[in-house]
Amino acid sequence: MVKRIEIGEPANLTASEIIYQLAEGSLSAEAVTKACLARIEALEPSVHAWAHYDSQLALMQAKEADRRRMQGLPLGPLHGVPIGLKDIIDARGLPTENGTPLDAGNRPLEDATLTRRLRNAGAVILGKTVSSELAYFHPGPTTNPHDPNRTPGGSSSGSAAAVAAGMVPFAVGTQTNGSVIRPAAFCGVVGYKPSFGAVPRTGVLKAAQSLDHVGFFARSVEDIALAACVMGPDDKDAGCTINPGPLLETALSDPLVAPDLAMVYTPFRKRLDETTLAGLAEVVDVLGEHATETELPEVFGRGAGWLATIMASEMARNLNHYVERGSDQISDAFKALMDQGNSTLAVDYLAARDMQQVLVDSLDPLFERFDAIMTPAAIGEAPADLTSTGDPIFCTLWTFCGLPAITLPILTGSNNMPVGVQLVGRRGQDAKLLRTARWVLSQCSAEEEAE
Amino acid sequence: MVKRIEIGEPANLTASEIIYQLAEGSLSAEAVTKACLARIEALEPSVHAWAHYDSQLALMQAKEADRRRMQGLPLGPLHGVPIGLKDIIDARGLPTENGTPLDAGNRPLEDATLTRRLRNAGAVILGKTVSSELAYFHPGPTTNPHDPNRTPGGSSSGSAAAVAAGMVPFAVGTQTNGSVIRPAAFCGVVGYKPSFGAVPRTGVLKAAQSLDHVGFFARSVEDIALAACVMGPDDKDAGCTINPGPLLETALSDPLVAPDLAMVYTPFRKRLDETTLAGLAEVVDVLGEHATETELPEVFGRGAGWLATIMASEMARNLNHYVERGSDQISDAFKALMDQGNSTLAVDYLAARDMQQVLVDSLDPLFERFDAIMTPAAIGEAPADLTSTGDPIFCTLWTFCGLPAITLPILTGSNNMPVGVQLVGRRGQDAKLLRTARWVLSQCSAEEEAE
Repeated sequence: MVKRIEIGEPANLTASEIIYQLAEGSLSAEAVTKACLARIEALEPSVHAWAHYDSQLALMQAKEADRRRMQGLPLGPLHGVPIGLKDIIDARGLPTENGTPLDAGNRPLEDATLTRRLRNAGAVILGKTVSSELAYFHPGPTTNPHDPNRTPGGSSSGSAAAVAAGMVPFAVGTQTNGSVIRPAAFCGVVGYKPSFGAVPRTGVLKAAQSLDHVGFFARSVEDIALAACVMGPDDKDAGCTINPGPLLETALSDPLVAPDLAMVYTPFRKRLDETTLAGLAEVVDVLGEHATETELPEVFGRGAGWLATIMASEMARNLNHYVERGSDQISDAFKALMDQGNSTLAVDYLAARDMQQVLVDSLDPLFERFDAIMTPAAIGEAPADLTSTGDPIFCTLWTFCGLPAITLPILTGSNNMPVGVQLVGRRGQDAKLLRTARWVLSQCSAEEEAE
Repeated sequence: MVKRIEIGEPANLTASEIIYQLAEGSLSAEAVTKACLARIEALEPSVHAWAHYDSQLALMQAKEADRRRMQGLPLGPLHGVPIGLKDIIDARGLPTENGTPLDAGNRPLEDATLTRRLRNAGAVILGKTVSSELAYFHPGPTTNPHDPNRTPGGSSSGSAAAVAAGMVPFAVGTQTNGSVIRPAAFCGVVGYKPSFGAVPRTGVLKAAQSLDHVGFFARSVEDIALAACVMGPDDKDAGCTINPGPLLETALSDPLVAPDLAMVYTPFRKRLDETTLAGLAEVVDVLGEHATETELPEVFGRGAGWLATIMASEMARNLNHYVERGSDQISDAFKALMDQGNSTLAVDYLAARDMQQVLVDSLDPLFERFDAIMTPAAIGEAPADLTSTGDPIFCTLWTFCGLPAITLPILTGSNNMPVGVQLVGRRGQDAKLLRTARWVLSQCSAEEEAE
């Protein structure tokens, strides 16, 4: 019943497998890039994961990666791995259109800091993946690779779909409310939103600076840990202050003692669909004494309202100029957000900002007892509705608190669509969270095999 | 004409002189503390520098300091030096009344981080100095030690007056707009506002967290450099992120090449009185080719408005509860600030916050050419008015930008009152600023002797 869903068809190599085969010499970066491009050619007409991709530019990078390897030059941790970048992240040579026709043809002159770090790590940038309008709710054209009538989630729609469809093994997105974890859960891939302040946002669309996180999509926890190569302080992003440490080594290691998980349904439990509730109960069952149902402090019930206040205020400050430039090309949903932000009082904004740390501190007792929180990633399967990207509520509290979160494609819903299980850690303890995630996956797989 | 004013009467030992004599054995901490207490007893009836002082508690600390020295225990850089703390800074054993009757009798259970660091450095805490109401404009009872009919400035009124009157050689204050530099200038002492983020504010009244700076008062630049012992990150104050390095060593060293100063009158030049203008012109004259009149980028003309927006919003968020608790005990000036803050929009607040970095960045070309900015510390002498603390405008821009600033008691006004000259450095380059300040003082003294 607890079942790991099959990802994509035919199954793609994971980034780690590609890295291994490249090192072994049984594969070239050019060959794997061509395979990804062929997959894009085949599936893009129905999936629409890409805002832009450039086969020639991709193959040039791949050949250069192969040349460097042949010459014995130093190689980074993602050397030769094809990746996608959400189309709100700048990459030299490609447009950044931010999911709005108002930015059509916009070409940045510089890489985002994280793009530069990915290039230094050896990644082959295939292109830019679809973002919903200005990384908010109004959807782009992307469909769910598991069912073209269903949303892939958003706002990092294309990154989630591209990884799920086998177009790339690794993609970058962003989350200001639920824009990484939710689409990853809907598309059945691993989604990871690091601690606030772990990844530089210089060169990424500034939506709400107190909430904006860069996040990652892959098809295994090991692959997700490759995100380490973009982490660490950046003097251009004052909010980027921490480095969560050796993600890859820790994620690949086994915990010395089995971790304890706090199963948290949150104050929003009644929004969960029944199959998801039943699936979570089964996971709790599998983990036995290592999962304990736990309540959040009462103050968390107001967290979503505070996030909305911050998000509306900061996005109105940062993005209202789009409405001024072309109101007729902006969705009603976005205009409503601007209206909310433009009428918010500074004292209410500042009160909400203060509550971020209050909520984080209130979790100290929980994290002293438990290694991670286990909680839904979304209310259930991806809705059969392409006019919305679904409800982000099960991501909201963790974004608000800036805690590291990962969703694992462990469950299947009543329509055979993937359903994610989210784990949440202490701020800065991302490496431990990834290790715990691998342990949870191993417990669920062992159970599956035993059945 | 450019004249260093005499400080206090009879002239007190500076902190550095005390430290030297204590080390030499020609003075005890108990003796110097008694001398300070005697000075307080003599002058306090007219100066009113202290909100609270506790002779017994002070003498206990002094005797303990002498005992530690006798026993050969490790001693800190302020060992045995009597100091005062502005009465918005928590110190165990003393009240913190924040300049308002609404906090009468409030006794903190813990030291502020900076108080703990001062104790670790060996300082003898004599008591708490008068703050204007909630560190804003409404004055306390303190008078100017040079003329009891004149304001000492504010809001760190008592700290400035206590150092000027010879009651302590070193005192701590805070500045959210002009609350260190202005009173130091009015009282004829050295005032220093370090870079934003250099001193932890945990345990200090939170007025406007994006503007609040801790600052220092002393009677020499060497003494001011002793502030180094409270600097450096504190995990309870997210805004405290930098450590400006070896202040004392650098302040005591001579620059390898004579520094170049940008004489900046700011967009508020016309508020300066004529004697101050003439005095500044003489300083420029003395420095010769090392001082060049320079304009600020035009955007600085709006800096004061942006500071007001941030200050009102954040103070309303943080301090409005005082009005709710006892409106009749709060000044009209403070209530007007609350009204302004409570009606400010979040987008306007956020726009003003964004401008802080914009203004800092716009100074890059200036700081590439000049070692420091030279600028007035205030519009002139301390006004003969005890109902106000004077105009902070010549501090506003540097507080807004979070730049390190120091005022030197170089000039004398037409009423024979002290007039300060302010130097401003690049953020984080406090040590260099202090070295430049000593150099400027030495040039002005050399000129004086030559006359």
